[in-house]
This record gives sequence, C-alpha cells and structure tokens, in this order.
Amino acid sequence: MENLAPKGQTNHQFADADRAAVYQAIFSRRDVRGQFTDDPVSDDVLSRILMAAHYAPSVGFMQPWNFIVIRSSETKHQVHGLFDKAHAEAADMFDAGDQEFYRRLKLEGIREAPINICITCDKDRAGPVVIGRTHSKAMDLYSSVCAVQNLWLAARAEGLGVGWVSIFDQKALKCALGIPKRVVPVAYICLGHVTGFKDKPELQTLGWRPRLPVADLVAFEHWQGAGDDKAGPLLARLAADQDAAEQGEYPGRVTIAD
Amino acid sequence: MENLAPKGQTNHQFADADRAAVYQAIFSRRDVRGQFTDDPVSDDVLSRILMAAHYAPSVGFMQPWNFIVIRSSETKHQVHGLFDKAHAEAADMFDAGDQEFYRRLKLEGIREAPINICITCDKDRAGPVVIGRTHSKAMDLYSSVCAVQNLWLAARAEGLGVGWVSIFDQKALKCALGIPKRVVPVAYICLGHVTGFKDKPELQTLGWRPRLPVADLVAFEHWQGAGDDKAGPLLARLAADQDAAEQGEYPGRVTIAD
Repeated sequence: MENLAPKGQTNHQFADADRAAVYQAIFSRRDVRGQFTDDPVSDDVLSRILMAAHYAPSVGFMQPWNFIVIRSSETKHQVHGLFDKAHAEAADMFDAGDQEFYRRLKLEGIREAPINICITCDKDRAGPVVIGRTHSKAMDLYSSVCAVQNLWLAARAEGLGVGWVSIFDQKALKCALGIPKRVVPVAYICLGHVTGFKDKPELQTLGWRPRLPVADLVAFEHWQGAGDDKAGPLLARLAADQDAAEQGEYPGRVTIAD
Repeated sequence: MENLAPKGQTNHQFADADRAAVYQAIFSRRDVRGQFTDDPVSDDVLSRILMAAHYAPSVGFMQPWNFIVIRSSETKHQVHGLFDKAHAEAADMFDAGDQEFYRRLKLEGIREAPINICITCDKDRAGPVVIGRTHSKAMDLYSSVCAVQNLWLAARAEGLGVGWVSIFDQKALKCALGIPKRVVPVAYICLGHVTGFKDKPELQTLGWRPRLPVADLVAFEHWQGAGDDKAGPLLARLAADQDAAEQGEYPGRVTIAD
C-alpha cells in the first residue's frame, strides 16, 4: 500500500491541527452573495481551486466536468439578465405572504464577483456505458457536484467566497454560454475575495428556516429505524456537537482546545 | 461582519499549514472498496463526520438529507444481494472486450465496512416552492451530494475510508430500506478504518481511463472559448499544478515547502 503521508502526519488520521483545518473549512464555508470585493484573484489561487475541483470523485473515473471561466462584464451582464428574468418568475411562485421576503433577498453576486465559473457535466464524456452509472443515471451529475463542493472548500481555505446561483432558465443559460445539448450546466458560481464571511447562513439568521437538529435526521438500519442500544449515545453526541457548532465551536477545534 | 477567525488565523485566508491540510484531504481522498478493516468507528468520530455532512450547503437552506446508519450484518447482506444482482446486469451492458475487466473489479465493501450509510434527499422537506429550486429542480439532490462530499473529506481527515456504491436497482434499495416514495436515495456509502489509502484512483492505475489534463477542460467566457491574453498563464499554471499533483505534490503543500 502506498504511503501518502507528508511529514508529521500518519497516512490515515490527520494530525489534530490538520484535521481541525478541514472542519474549519467545512463549518465556516458560506454561500456568498453580497460580500464580494473587486480585488483580483491570482492565477495561482484560481489554478489551485480548479485543481481541487478536478480531483473530485467521479463515477467510473469519467471526470465529466468542464469549467467555463467568465471574467468579462459583457458575459456577466448577459447572465445577470437571465437571472433577473427567472428571479421575477420565481417570486410569483411563492405564497403572497412570502413574496416580499423573497424579493428582498440578495441571491447572487454575478456582476460584483471578479470571476464567475459555470461547472458542467458532459454525459458523453466516457461513452454510453460507464462503470457505476449503469443503474443510477444521475451519478455523472453528482460527480460534477462533488467537484463544486471541492472547489467551494478550497476557495474557503484560500479566503475566497463562493456563491452558487441556480435561478436561471437552464435552456437560456445553455444558449447564452453556447453549451451543447449533451452537456448539463450543473452549477453557476460567483467567486472572489470578500469583505468577510457571515457567522451563519443568511436564511437561518433571517429566520426563514432553522438549522434542523441533526439527531432527528439520523435513523438506524431502516428509514426512521430507532436502532438498538448503540443509537442513544450517538444521538446524544450529535446533539452535543451541534450545540457546540451553533456556538461557533467546530468539532475538530473543540478537540484541539482540550 | 462577524469574525469567525480562530486564534492564529485571519478571517479570510487560512494559515498556510491549515490551507495545506484542506488540500491534503481533497487530493488524498479515495473511493475505498477493498481496504476496510473491522476496527470499530467511535461515536465521537461518526458524530463529527455526520455533522460535517449536515453543515453542507443546501438550496433554500432546506437541508433535505437523512442518514440511515447501517451496522447489522443482516441489513448489509440484504443490500449486498441487491448489489450482486445489479452488478451482474451491469457487466452484460459492457462491450464483450470490457466485460472481464469489469467483472474483476472490486466495486464495493458493503459487508467488510463496519458502517454503511444511506444518504437521501427528501424533496418535500421544505414545501413545494423552495428558494433556488424554482428553475433547477435537481438542486435538492445536488445539496445532498454536497453533504456526501463533506462527509467524505471529513472521513479522510479522520483517517477513515469511504466508498460510494451506486450499482443498485434504486427501487429495490428503497424497498429494502423502507424509504418512502418522495425520498431519493442519493448515495449508499461504506465507511470504516482502512489498511491504507491508495496513491491514485484504481481505475487510473489499472489503465481504464487516464486523469484528463485539467487545462483541456477550462474555457473562457463561452463553451470552448479560448479567452484573451489572460488565458495562457492560467492554463500553464494548471498544467504545472497537475504535473506536481500527479507526483504527489499537492498544491497547498508545494507552497508550504517553499
């Protein structure tokens, strides 16, 4: 078995400080809409976060993603126009009582962010029969989503914000960017330096929806299965970890502080 | 703006060592099938990685995921039977020349891994109209995939392997686990301690498919757009970073070594 361990780290478990850094990225990552600055993003940084995306898992190692990097104001304005149209349509779909709340939300930073990236999935990347996609047709799309999440966490570690904009007519977006029929635009993200990262997700802070208790979402053996004697201690641990996280104490960091 | 910075770290960019740890998790993560040990996974560790999943981004903050934790051999054997059936069907789908290669692959560790987790997406979690899902109906599924990727990276930092098994008849899997109609089983993962992590993805090592050159997957402004003068330096940086990564030098770590 190959040993990938860098100096000071076992092959398996990361050193405490390194493990904590991974949790730090996971727990302090935010969907950024209103905090972008126009500071340029260097090629070194952009290359590293695109590499992080490219080393995501993919079904049958098909690597179905492409990355369209958008920096010109013309393209951004065109895409923003598509957002505006879809956003207006979306507002009308909510109950009357929620429409004003929805319209006041800042849901994208397309023009403010120095870089936009459209991450796609080419369903023909590896021919018609793909290892692992035979019974789950969406696995290639899911692979591209894994690339997005890798990019998001790498960007957080680099101090860059990412916002995922999904309010577009998909056909109109494909047309605007010249994306061929077989390719699915999985994510349109805004990327850039930020004035800061919010403490909690905005929809949580604004009271739209609470963070759900994770212990309510865990079952055993079966949908809603209550489990055996082992279930109680895990559920109690989850509740305690979530209480700590909501106070800003991420799991890894709590361990370090001891 | 709230400041989440832990001691010794700015709010925005992680310290070099912390940033490198995030890249270490991203680049050394593997899809594990054959290296699971039966060492038990503690509740503390399992809680942390489930928490990492629960703090994934989700469209409209809907948190559509549930986690079915499977530890009993009975459930594992039942699920493994579903894999066996689908795997045999899958083999027949490949060209004659590829069938033997496919049949020899070890594609799951369902029975060997001490823990299996089915991660789902409840499309009704937040009512019919969800912020950000109005024009992209798959965004809730994508949110659950982000949870899977968070879990995967957290597990890597904890020294645990994860394998994503997708070769099931989806209806049969739902039936076996009692998953209701409105809920989609997004990922079935095997989780446990491992004897080691492979240096590269197995399908790459076995020569099934190469790691694609990332520079070939990046375009500018438009599908396959060649970009302006800024494109060349970024593409050159990407190629250099990929060369280094294929030698085991992850981007963050290279920076640290300087």
